Amino acid sequence: MTKKETLDFLSSGTMTAKVSTASLTGKPHVAPVWFVIDVDYNKPVNDLVIIFTTFNKSLKAKHLLLNPQICLCIDDQKPPYSFVIINGIVEIDSSPTKVDLLSYTTRIAERYMGKENAELYGKRNAVSGELIIKIRPIKIIAQKNVSD
Amino acid sequence: MTKKETLDFLSSGTMTAKVSTASLTGKPHVAPVWFVIDVDYNKPVNDLVIIFTTFNKSLKAKHLLLNPQICLCIDDQKPPYSFVIINGIVEIDSSPTKVDLLSYTTRIAERYMGKENAELYGKRNAVSGELIIKIRPIKIIAQKNVSD
Repeated sequence: MTKKETLDFLSSGTMTAKVSTASLTGKPHVAPVWFVIDVDYNKPVNDLVIIFTTFNKSLKAKHLLLNPQICLCIDDQKPPYSFVIINGIVEIDSSPTKVDLLSYTTRIAERYMGKENAELYGKRNAVSGELIIKIRPIKIIAQKNVSD
Repeated sequence: MTKKETLDFLSSGTMTAKVSTASLTGKPHVAPVWFVIDVDYNKPVNDLVIIFTTFNKSLKAKHLLLNPQICLCIDDQKPPYSFVIINGIVEIDSSPTKVDLLSYTTRIAERYMGKENAELYGKRNAVSGELIIKIRPIKIIAQKNVSD
């Protein structure tokens, strides 16, 4: 994919990111998350920031608090199959202000549940204990139309 | 999800498995794979076997040859969002017979590319160096309609 194709792919529709984390002894975990990206199309693709929130008692949070290495996969599950894999290091805001947290959860909810449900789901997900996770990519692999 | 819902979810459509592996020092990786399951609806859900193939030079193969722990996520990326997460240990056939390998790649290709393309894609993916990976689950988490 070109840079534009990669950024469009990551920001369109309701594809979830499958977030892979690991314990320091190599126990892998993967779970789906809702995410948004902060992006400037005029900057290099690696300048994009991926943002999601997760509860501090989730396994991915526990892994990330000890081991900030992360790998994400976002894919289109229909022929001809396309995917993006991103490696990065997380920056964790473990005690976000209510305003910051609600701003992200509402933006994320709008993407995945629609504008009409953004406020409801934004509030539902902005609970105490929720962490804001930001990733700046170190490496991006983006392949389109794998089966062609 | 009930057992039947979980097995139906894993075997229907073209959802890919996002396969998470890790190095022994905790570097995580995740990538999409085409897979099939061997299943007997009369047996416990943990008796199911998940099968995919991967090239021996892929990062997931390199990780799995050193560290057989694996975690998979299969999810429906549209509202109301459902997912299955499976932890397991892999059994690797690193020098499969051509007949065995072709039998799996053809079955997998039929699922993801349709009956009419199964032979073509089955052959395309049954190349020398391809490993057969089988997983028997240790733990399964299956949640339907997450956003309801």
